[in-house]
Parts: sequence; structure tokens; C-alpha cells
Amino acid sequence: MADILHRVGIKSSVEETYNALTTCEGLAAWWTRDTQGEGTVGDPLRFRFGAAGFDMKVLELNAPSRVLWQVVDGPDEWIGTRVSWELAHEGEYAIVLFRHEGWKAPVEFMHHCSTKWAIFLMSLKSFVETGTGAPYPNDVKIDNWN
Amino acid sequence: MADILHRVGIKSSVEETYNALTTCEGLAAWWTRDTQGEGTVGDPLRFRFGAAGFDMKVLELNAPSRVLWQVVDGPDEWIGTRVSWELAHEGEYAIVLFRHEGWKAPVEFMHHCSTKWAIFLMSLKSFVETGTGAPYPNDVKIDNWN
Repeated sequence: MADILHRVGIKSSVEETYNALTTCEGLAAWWTRDTQGEGTVGDPLRFRFGAAGFDMKVLELNAPSRVLWQVVDGPDEWIGTRVSWELAHEGEYAIVLFRHEGWKAPVEFMHHCSTKWAIFLMSLKSFVETGTGAPYPNDVKIDNWN
Repeated sequence: MADILHRVGIKSSVEETYNALTTCEGLAAWWTRDTQGEGTVGDPLRFRFGAAGFDMKVLELNAPSRVLWQVVDGPDEWIGTRVSWELAHEGEYAIVLFRHEGWKAPVEFMHHCSTKWAIFLMSLKSFVETGTGAPYPNDVKIDNWN
């Protein structure tokens, strides 16, 4: 098993950051504009990037410090993996510890997704700090897979 | 053991990208301005970020497709880890597969370094594509650890 790990610090509150991870409007403002779902435990969130995308089942919501999703549909490599978010207050920052865990193998696509998650976490940071993120389709492109 | 993985695509040649990873001038243009060393096999490269920094021993240079460093001085968590760069031509891109491998544990600092590597890889991409990177101290800050 292999995991993608990231850490960003957002100059805002843990509560504001949690809202950006647990509401359809928040998620659409930094990850992809084409986001659907209620975001309640047990329900799916549907994220689309053109024809491709991911469905996440919300496994845990522990406001304002923890969110856990399981990938239930999407690319083969993603299905069954989990995405966890841990939030903590530190000085003037909300610290986000991010993990996309349980990859079966460190394939090239995992390398791409690791970099792309960092880009989207910076979009999350920008959205919470300034009100403006860079969600798909206006996301920063990193390679020939976008 | 845990690894940091990334992938970026640079709209340039593999040779230009390789030069940015194997010359003092190239490295100083995207990672940290305070870079010293010849970059030859067996020799150290010294990267400084203010008071902190890393010394890398160049283990392999296989132009223009592979570079391998070993961390010989720096934070405890980094010592003994390896940083590998694999370059390949794909369409109009030089594809960079990056690995910082051999972390003893997935500590919080590793989360930070993973995100920060992504930021510096985007700086590498910008430097090779446009001539302008964002090396330390002008790097994009991601959290309270910078």
C-alpha cells in the first residue's frame, strides 16, 4: 500500500476550512465546479472533471477536525482508496493534514495525482483565505494528463 | 518506508530539463538561490534555505534520463533518504517522475515536504518553460513551516 500525503496551512479558522470540505458549494469552489451531493455521512459526493471523475462516500464527519471519504467509483486505481482530512488550529493557521491512502501500487498515475492534489490544496487555501479558488476547469495544469 | 511521488510535464526538451537538475545555475533558478557544488557524481550539492538546508551526494547521472541523489546532511528525517529524477520525452513534454524515497515514517514533516516538493516542481517547470522560476527565498509559501 502507498499513500499520498500533504500539509497546507490556511490563514483562517478550522471551521471555515471544514465548511469548504463538507459543503457542495465549498468543494465546488476549489476542486471542481461540477460537484454534486449533500455531503452527509453515508451519502455520495460526485466530482466530475469533464467526462471523468470520482464518487466519494462520506464515511466520517467530525466537525471541525476530521473528514473521511471512500472512493466508490472512478479510475480503477482510486476505487477503494480513502481520502482523509485532519484539521487543527496552530497560531494564525488552520493546518490541513491530507492523506489519500491505500493505493495498491505506486504507479505513474499516483505520481500525477500526488502533484495534482498539492495544486488543489493550494486552491483550497486560496479559496478559504481570499474567496477565490482555482477549481476545474480553471485549475493549474501540471502535465500532459492535466 | 514511505515515499513522496510527483509527476510534472514540462513543455521543453528532456535535455533542457536535465540541465536544470544537474547544474548549479539550473538548480539555483528553481529550488534555492543558495546552491553550491559542481554536481558531478560522488560530489555533494549544498542547498541552503536561510539557516537550514540539505547536502546531497550525487549518486547517479545518466544524461538525459536519470539523476539520483542521497541526502547526507540536513534534518534527521531526510538523512539517508534518496531523491530520484526520471525524465522521458512524451509528445511535446519532458515528463519528470520524481521520488523522494526511504522516509522511515510518514511524519507530519513528510506531509509538508510532499506539498513543498510539488510547489518546487512547478517552479522547475516554470523555469525550464519560461526562464523564470520561483526559488527560495521567492518560493510560494504553503503553511506555517513555509
